[in-house]
Amino acid sequence: MALFKVEALYDFVGESNTAELSITAGETLTVTRVDIGEGWWEGLNSKGQSGLFPEAYVSKIEDSTPPSMPPPVLPPQANDWGGAQQDDDWDDEWDNDDTYSEIANTQRESHYSNEPNQNQFSYGAAHADNLSESNFSVDNRGTVAKKSLNIFSSYVKSGLESYIFGTLKDIPAHTNVRIYRENDNIFRWEMISNPYTVQVTSPKKASKMGGLKSFIAYQLTPSFTGIEVSRRYKHFDWLHNRLSEKFNVIAMPPLPDKQISGRYEEHFIEHRRVQLQEFVNYVCRHPVLSTCEVWHHFLTCTNEKQWKEGKRKAEKDQLVGANFCLCIEAPDKDLLASTIESKIENSITYISQMDQNIKGLMQTAADQQKKCENLYKREQTKIGESFFTLGVAFEHREGGMFSELATDVKKIGTTYMEIAKLYEDQAKIDWQPLTDKLYLYRGITSSYPDIFSMQKHSEQKKKECEKNSQISSVQINEVRKRTDILTYAVFAELDHFRSEMNSEFKAAMKSFLQEQVNFYRNIVSKFEDTLQRFE
Amino acid sequence: MALFKVEALYDFVGESNTAELSITAGETLTVTRVDIGEGWWEGLNSKGQSGLFPEAYVSKIEDSTPPSMPPPVLPPQANDWGGAQQDDDWDDEWDNDDTYSEIANTQRESHYSNEPNQNQFSYGAAHADNLSESNFSVDNRGTVAKKSLNIFSSYVKSGLESYIFGTLKDIPAHTNVRIYRENDNIFRWEMISNPYTVQVTSPKKASKMGGLKSFIAYQLTPSFTGIEVSRRYKHFDWLHNRLSEKFNVIAMPPLPDKQISGRYEEHFIEHRRVQLQEFVNYVCRHPVLSTCEVWHHFLTCTNEKQWKEGKRKAEKDQLVGANFCLCIEAPDKDLLASTIESKIENSITYISQMDQNIKGLMQTAADQQKKCENLYKREQTKIGESFFTLGVAFEHREGGMFSELATDVKKIGTTYMEIAKLYEDQAKIDWQPLTDKLYLYRGITSSYPDIFSMQKHSEQKKKECEKNSQISSVQINEVRKRTDILTYAVFAELDHFRSEMNSEFKAAMKSFLQEQVNFYRNIVSKFEDTLQRFE
Repeated sequence: MALFKVEALYDFVGESNTAELSITAGETLTVTRVDIGEGWWEGLNSKGQSGLFPEAYVSKIEDSTPPSMPPPVLPPQANDWGGAQQDDDWDDEWDNDDTYSEIANTQRESHYSNEPNQNQFSYGAAHADNLSESNFSVDNRGTVAKKSLNIFSSYVKSGLESYIFGTLKDIPAHTNVRIYRENDNIFRWEMISNPYTVQVTSPKKASKMGGLKSFIAYQLTPSFTGIEVSRRYKHFDWLHNRLSEKFNVIAMPPLPDKQISGRYEEHFIEHRRVQLQEFVNYVCRHPVLSTCEVWHHFLTCTNEKQWKEGKRKAEKDQLVGANFCLCIEAPDKDLLASTIESKIENSITYISQMDQNIKGLMQTAADQQKKCENLYKREQTKIGESFFTLGVAFEHREGGMFSELATDVKKIGTTYMEIAKLYEDQAKIDWQPLTDKLYLYRGITSSYPDIFSMQKHSEQKKKECEKNSQISSVQINEVRKRTDILTYAVFAELDHFRSEMNSEFKAAMKSFLQEQVNFYRNIVSKFEDTLQRFE
Repeated sequence: MALFKVEALYDFVGESNTAELSITAGETLTVTRVDIGEGWWEGLNSKGQSGLFPEAYVSKIEDSTPPSMPPPVLPPQANDWGGAQQDDDWDDEWDNDDTYSEIANTQRESHYSNEPNQNQFSYGAAHADNLSESNFSVDNRGTVAKKSLNIFSSYVKSGLESYIFGTLKDIPAHTNVRIYRENDNIFRWEMISNPYTVQVTSPKKASKMGGLKSFIAYQLTPSFTGIEVSRRYKHFDWLHNRLSEKFNVIAMPPLPDKQISGRYEEHFIEHRRVQLQEFVNYVCRHPVLSTCEVWHHFLTCTNEKQWKEGKRKAEKDQLVGANFCLCIEAPDKDLLASTIESKIENSITYISQMDQNIKGLMQTAADQQKKCENLYKREQTKIGESFFTLGVAFEHREGGMFSELATDVKKIGTTYMEIAKLYEDQAKIDWQPLTDKLYLYRGITSSYPDIFSMQKHSEQKKKECEKNSQISSVQINEVRKRTDILTYAVFAELDHFRSEMNSEFKAAMKSFLQEQVNFYRNIVSKFEDTLQRFE
């Protein structure tokens, strides 16, 4: 038992109904335990309340210089302590839906402390001579960040050098992913032979341990089995980590944000379902992702023992990162350096513009959504109230002449109040679905710099080999071939992304416009009804 | 020639192309003339520029305590000096359109200096025991204020006592205004026997003195003559003063505001024309106003000599204020004190509620008008830009696949920009006309407290007479009769006002709603057009 005084450096609001203790900057606390793990300490405040708080949020009293930085990123939820690292359960006993990504969270802490709220798209990395020196600016959304961080923290781990130099022991017996050349300049993943869909339905609040612990589970039904499986957000998160690790050359769609507060609210749960459906749809339509083993395991496994086995197998997968390219069969034609360079530079410009403008429209959409629910609703309500109270003034009868007009003017008032309600409801119908679509593609565009970097890095490695007189020409040819396969994969992935975005955005815009038409038609019809009283 | 230093206490922006000099608070000026008159001084600033500025805006340097009050009301325009008081011209030589109401302006200054920006509706006066002590809160809009001020400044001048006690020498030979009883409780002005209309058209900018002086003239064409007459705002203002003076028992519609800046701008001129048309319409439909001599003189006189004669005649009219009631033939039945009290109290409540709620809707309308032209337009533009730039990003061709979607997404952008323009234009079509109507009726409701006060005052005078044993019963009967006529006039006027407001508001609301329908239909059709591209 530790016993020493600390001063809170930042406010921390503990999650209610957990062991967390809310603390206020400047408050003195007595630390009672430091061996909680995961960045949490236990302590007492001056009122004698005991609980957990983030170690990084306090400073020993002797330590006299509190840093003037923003508060560091929170450690994983306090109620995770005591088992998260070893978690291997089909379904664990924590009531927290957002706790699975222990790796991502701890990495995030060390990485983001220097760049809070950075959210820009930088291509510096793509042009850096040495990748280990490259300084990515990554998106601060959890699921997108993770992949970047994996690459950032260790390129060796990502398998690029291993792949380029062919160091992997267990080379797969055969390739199972094919890239074909559609014409001189277009390369595509081979189409999905058996397309299928997966429905994400009925989020359910389930509880364990006699109601003490509760969580939300989503039901997934693949069209090729028709069998429903139940998955929690943390399972999606685990899956996302596996896919991101394995498919470095594929721009991964993001999962919905790891929102902490309000996660049991009906609207939040339903909205997350919609976002998960978007993610699932993207994976289902992806020629590589839709056929991979871990995804099928995720979609079909209904047995706890098999789940654990599949989970361990996926985590031990050797063909991850760049080594996944060993599974690819690409056109047997060397790529010209000039072709590569022009296509990549072109794509960098394209993706960068897309990223920036999708982000711009997302901000507009978020802004408009808020304005529909607040500003516009309020304005229409104000107008409504002004007419309504004027109508009431007309009600004052002296001579009994104005009652009809009073009713009609009041009706104008209620019409505007109904329109206020339309505005409030509208945002969920038009801006929200558009935002969900943009969110998915923005997640993808923001992970492209890493892919471009890896491609550049592989080209660089190839050139280093070509200059190295100690390497045999046979070996160099192997290196060239593998480098080309990786580049073909990037090309195929870019092509897939473009065509997906094209059709998906087209559909999203169409549905958005349709909702605009419906919304304004509704308003017209309300005014028309009211106008009839004045005819 | 005076020569002393003053410090500017407030900023004053001189009208361009006049002798006015702009001054800045804190600036030191050398006064060169103090005998300009009308509250203006002449002086030099530190740059050696010479010009006129308001005396009240500066303080002698010796005088060390500048007051911490808001700047006093401006004196009449500097270019008025030297003749305004004696003005009798058909058309004078000043280039200022707003200078006619010299009486109103000077009164306003002394009255408003204590109550800047007061704009509330007070019925205190109606209940005051002694009218000379009553403290009206009057509207700060020029044309409305004037009438209040006339009453406030001198009740004797308004002719109430003269009328009640029958002291006027030249009693008219016959009455020419009749009030009839429609049923037990309703009293009406006799209907207009020959209804007519007057079109206010084609405001023209005319100039005099070789282009040095310019003014705006409006063309008025009464339906009963078909002959166009040309009238400037100052002629309207003179007319309004005459009508207000003469018809104390009639709630006078206001003229448009005496706006100083921007009065030669096209939109301002056209809008003022619309407002003058509103005023003219109200007068034309009023059974008393529409038939009175000064109004006919104003509508028909085309000859300068006759104009001057008519003008002098109107200014010398004896049957003004309460004495106008001498022209009224009312039902020959004494009003019961209880009837009077209940009707008046009822009307006070009604008018007060109307006044307050019309004001409320006017504020909302003004607010929405501004928001259409700024906020809503800006928001729609922002949305448009976000879509448009995303469309541009789609234009980046690599494989040449996205050009169609690029065009379509850009089209969503331009659709929103077009809608932004619709918002900007809309305010002039829906909120502005509604505001004009509300402005007219708000001017009327805000002048009712004076009418109610006068009625109460006349009742009080009657009671004083009844208690006075020195007054003969014949005389008392005369007083009673005259008091009743005045009350009948108030009843008839209230009835007219209500029925006018009823039909006018109904029409205004209808047209407002119709414009809402048109506006939102426009939006729907724009979205529908754009949606077709996505089908």
